[in-house]
Amino acid sequence: MTELAQQNGLFGLVAEELRAVETCLQAPVGGNGLLSSVARYAIASGGKRVRPALVLLAARACGAKEATRMVMLASVAEMMHAATLIHDDIVDRSPTRRGRPSTMARWGAEVSVLVGDFLYSRAVQMLVADEDLRIMRGFADATVAMTEAEVLQLQHLWNLTMPEPDYLKIVRGKTAALMSASCRGGAQVAGAPEAVIEALAAYGLQLGIGFQLVDDALDYAAREERLGKPVASDFREGKITYPILHVMAVASEADRAALVRLAGQQSIEEGDVAFLRALVERYAAIPATMRLVDGYLARARASLGALPDSPARESLLRLVDFVRERDW
Amino acid sequence: MTELAQQNGLFGLVAEELRAVETCLQAPVGGNGLLSSVARYAIASGGKRVRPALVLLAARACGAKEATRMVMLASVAEMMHAATLIHDDIVDRSPTRRGRPSTMARWGAEVSVLVGDFLYSRAVQMLVADEDLRIMRGFADATVAMTEAEVLQLQHLWNLTMPEPDYLKIVRGKTAALMSASCRGGAQVAGAPEAVIEALAAYGLQLGIGFQLVDDALDYAAREERLGKPVASDFREGKITYPILHVMAVASEADRAALVRLAGQQSIEEGDVAFLRALVERYAAIPATMRLVDGYLARARASLGALPDSPARESLLRLVDFVRERDW
Repeated sequence: MTELAQQNGLFGLVAEELRAVETCLQAPVGGNGLLSSVARYAIASGGKRVRPALVLLAARACGAKEATRMVMLASVAEMMHAATLIHDDIVDRSPTRRGRPSTMARWGAEVSVLVGDFLYSRAVQMLVADEDLRIMRGFADATVAMTEAEVLQLQHLWNLTMPEPDYLKIVRGKTAALMSASCRGGAQVAGAPEAVIEALAAYGLQLGIGFQLVDDALDYAAREERLGKPVASDFREGKITYPILHVMAVASEADRAALVRLAGQQSIEEGDVAFLRALVERYAAIPATMRLVDGYLARARASLGALPDSPARESLLRLVDFVRERDW
Repeated sequence: MTELAQQNGLFGLVAEELRAVETCLQAPVGGNGLLSSVARYAIASGGKRVRPALVLLAARACGAKEATRMVMLASVAEMMHAATLIHDDIVDRSPTRRGRPSTMARWGAEVSVLVGDFLYSRAVQMLVADEDLRIMRGFADATVAMTEAEVLQLQHLWNLTMPEPDYLKIVRGKTAALMSASCRGGAQVAGAPEAVIEALAAYGLQLGIGFQLVDDALDYAAREERLGKPVASDFREGKITYPILHVMAVASEADRAALVRLAGQQSIEEGDVAFLRALVERYAAIPATMRLVDGYLARARASLGALPDSPARESLLRLVDFVRERDW
């Protein structure tokens, strides 16, 4: 999707800086063969580079000229993201990530724990070298929120009666917090006034919530070859997401009971996936999720009202549409 | 050993601050049941609180008066230490830690990965709130060195011909780096001059190397009930430490060949442990290790020459002796 997004011109404005980010990401380690190989494998596992693009576009939208700090910060955001993905795959025991073996499947949980730790501590080291306390604070707060959300998600595995506020807290923490910190950091690097910084942080937060909700919808709605993982992966792993919460809220007693039985098994077979998709279809859970998405995306768009017109602001607006329309 | 050390008066000078550290460590999390429980379990698994004591004694030796920042920094050092222990137990698949189930054994690798991440990111958040870039830099550098060392250790599992510089790099990274950062941070909190900060950082580094080398010797020399884990745990996990490197350097060809066969099996039985201990005895590997220790500890003592006489400096000197004599 890096290619796709660039074809669409979505990140075209910062294409040069994104290439510099790739260079920076490929050279994080000196003198340690295994660490370097695994870190590169994890980082090269593609990914959409959404967080680096958010840093860069937010910085540009605030008039940043000087690329070096933007590129450093964009790399930090992606390294933190990669670190959490590596650890998530251990937590979820995921054999694949984006259609190829996960770092854990390829190198084992032992190495993966350490490489995740390394990428995160290198990212912190880079932030410290940059010497901007406000930016550090944003990323530190985001990583605390991320780990809190991941633990909350574990606590609610297979919990069909998870309160919606807890679900939204998980969504905010696991995805939106780092996107928000990325936008905030971009604006701070550009020396934007406080109101603009906060507007971009709000944009990143709302966009991130929408992004994760779309992800949760696609898990039931998309075709497997687009997902790079099996359909209904979330449910297979016990993660109850909005489409299922919606079904639980509106379904017939019989359908709810069937769902409760299924969750009670804590193990899903292929026939169950067809049943899950049928329930999601019957109770229009995808349109319901997308209505929720639209609310967040509308607020994301509105937040950009605080910024003057610019090509970067245009790109951030188009990114909102892209989140809505994506089936990648 | 917290009790033991306090009986010995080793940390008596900072007993009050150490109690404040305990309070701080017990209250790291708000509003998340599982995270809080596991973090407390991991932190309460005892430990010697050496790193907090180093922060506090270094600060006192530099004339620090105000306890709040010292206690915060001491807590940060212990949280980072706890985070690495939690992740190490995943890496080593250790069922026990200090004679009770490891966090991983008790709560699973999934939760343990996240709780380690949480403790580390909370520690970073606390450092950011303290707003001292030099202190942040010291701890960030230490955590990068720690993860690099852990990966290097994995690369050298079962490697009887590991170069001694790599072994010492592992020892420095996995133990001494954080002890050094703790001493450095204590001196920085106290506003010590640069030369004194560097002297205390050097003290912590040399002390930490000695500390880890003693640990590696005790793994073969101590009784199981003192270790809280089986004798020769390191070899069982494939970790080749100084006593074994010494045997490889001086043993007869037949003994070396037997050791190579044993390492080749990558799995050790009780009879093998007796053989390992016999080799360690025959080739005087413990005295050889302790000679190396003595060099580092002498340099640790010498580093304290840069400081004026004080009760805290006395305690740091006694800690050097204690590292030498410990069988805990």
